Amino acid sequence: MQKALVVLSGGQDSTTCLYWALKRFGAEGVEAVTFDYGQRHRIELRAARKVAQRAGVRHTQLPINTFSALGGNALTDGEIAVASGVSADTGLPNTFVPGRNLIFLTFAAALAYQRGIRHLVTGVAQTDYSGYPDCRENTLQALQQALRLGMASDIELHTPLMHLSKADTVRLAVQLGALDALADSHTCYNGSRPPCGQCPACLLRTKGFAEAGVDDPLLEALPW
Amino acid sequence: MQKALVVLSGGQDSTTCLYWALKRFGAEGVEAVTFDYGQRHRIELRAARKVAQRAGVRHTQLPINTFSALGGNALTDGEIAVASGVSADTGLPNTFVPGRNLIFLTFAAALAYQRGIRHLVTGVAQTDYSGYPDCRENTLQALQQALRLGMASDIELHTPLMHLSKADTVRLAVQLGALDALADSHTCYNGSRPPCGQCPACLLRTKGFAEAGVDDPLLEALPW
Repeated sequence: MQKALVVLSGGQDSTTCLYWALKRFGAEGVEAVTFDYGQRHRIELRAARKVAQRAGVRHTQLPINTFSALGGNALTDGEIAVASGVSADTGLPNTFVPGRNLIFLTFAAALAYQRGIRHLVTGVAQTDYSGYPDCRENTLQALQQALRLGMASDIELHTPLMHLSKADTVRLAVQLGALDALADSHTCYNGSRPPCGQCPACLLRTKGFAEAGVDDPLLEALPW
Repeated sequence: MQKALVVLSGGQDSTTCLYWALKRFGAEGVEAVTFDYGQRHRIELRAARKVAQRAGVRHTQLPINTFSALGGNALTDGEIAVASGVSADTGLPNTFVPGRNLIFLTFAAALAYQRGIRHLVTGVAQTDYSGYPDCRENTLQALQQALRLGMASDIELHTPLMHLSKADTVRLAVQLGALDALADSHTCYNGSRPPCGQCPACLLRTKGFAEAGVDDPLLEALPW
């Protein structure tokens, strides 16, 4: 049986990817991995657990204490506030953690290697996003090559959302029956539930649901 | 000024690479990074500190708690003994930590990114070694591409030992004036100082010095 490991952050995109994987590989063929990398908002980890639990898949949470030690970005450094827009120095948002997706996917590939899993699924997309270079297709292709060579494996990276707009991702979630699960997902950069509605992540999510003409179930969800 | 970051494990090869970098980039242009990834033998971290201190370079130690959480290999899992030879299942030694070098180099690249350093130096080699696929040149080339794309940088990976035998590496250390520093380096998989002389790592080191016709300064070093 072909098996897949989904990198599950607990956000909208990775939750949708989990349901994409369930449809393609079946309930018995899917696992999820979530990284506790010192993210400011522990609510993300809770969202991932809730989503995995609802989907009924084996869920592994792995710690990464290195990004906090590196410091210098708004996602893991409590002393830096999330800013809108991009830095004049780097042209990147100050939530950019250099190499974050490369690290996540490499550790996920290591877990997949140990479990005999060949397919790795990630919710990154190069459209509609905040300009993270490690979410682009050519980056992921290069990484797949490095992982294959470096682990002597035939691992395959799947990025079902790569070329979808946020509205397309919402439509895909509807098709996959993932809408209920999105009530448990977490997006807000300010860590609020209900979401703040003002941060860049909330605005992007709101726009996507609006363009797809779908009500966001998170906004109607009861508190956990 | 061009600057370089050396991935310093405290072993023979990375110590030699540090001196290679010092020659090429100058004392002011070199930093070192060491990873505390839960390795069984803390003596490696001490060796790295000693080597960096002797060379007078800025030294950063970063923690990685993820490999221990992944488990399943002899280097970070205290319940698994180091075996000789390779696994019949995987064709790899049981000290193989899937993706270890990919992770080290990606975190090193993240640190380099933060410090404005473009050159990354690692002591991996594809000759004379224990069969780790993440030490091969094609793996490193693919990783360099993933790092460049993923961090939107022009980072350059240097692997001065890639095609050297262990004896060649000893000869290079002599040329670079790194021999004294090798007295502080650590190689033994059993964590012994003086070294056990019996484990695969000790045997490889012994063979290299013997073939180069050089006395290993570690064997004559006083205890720290």
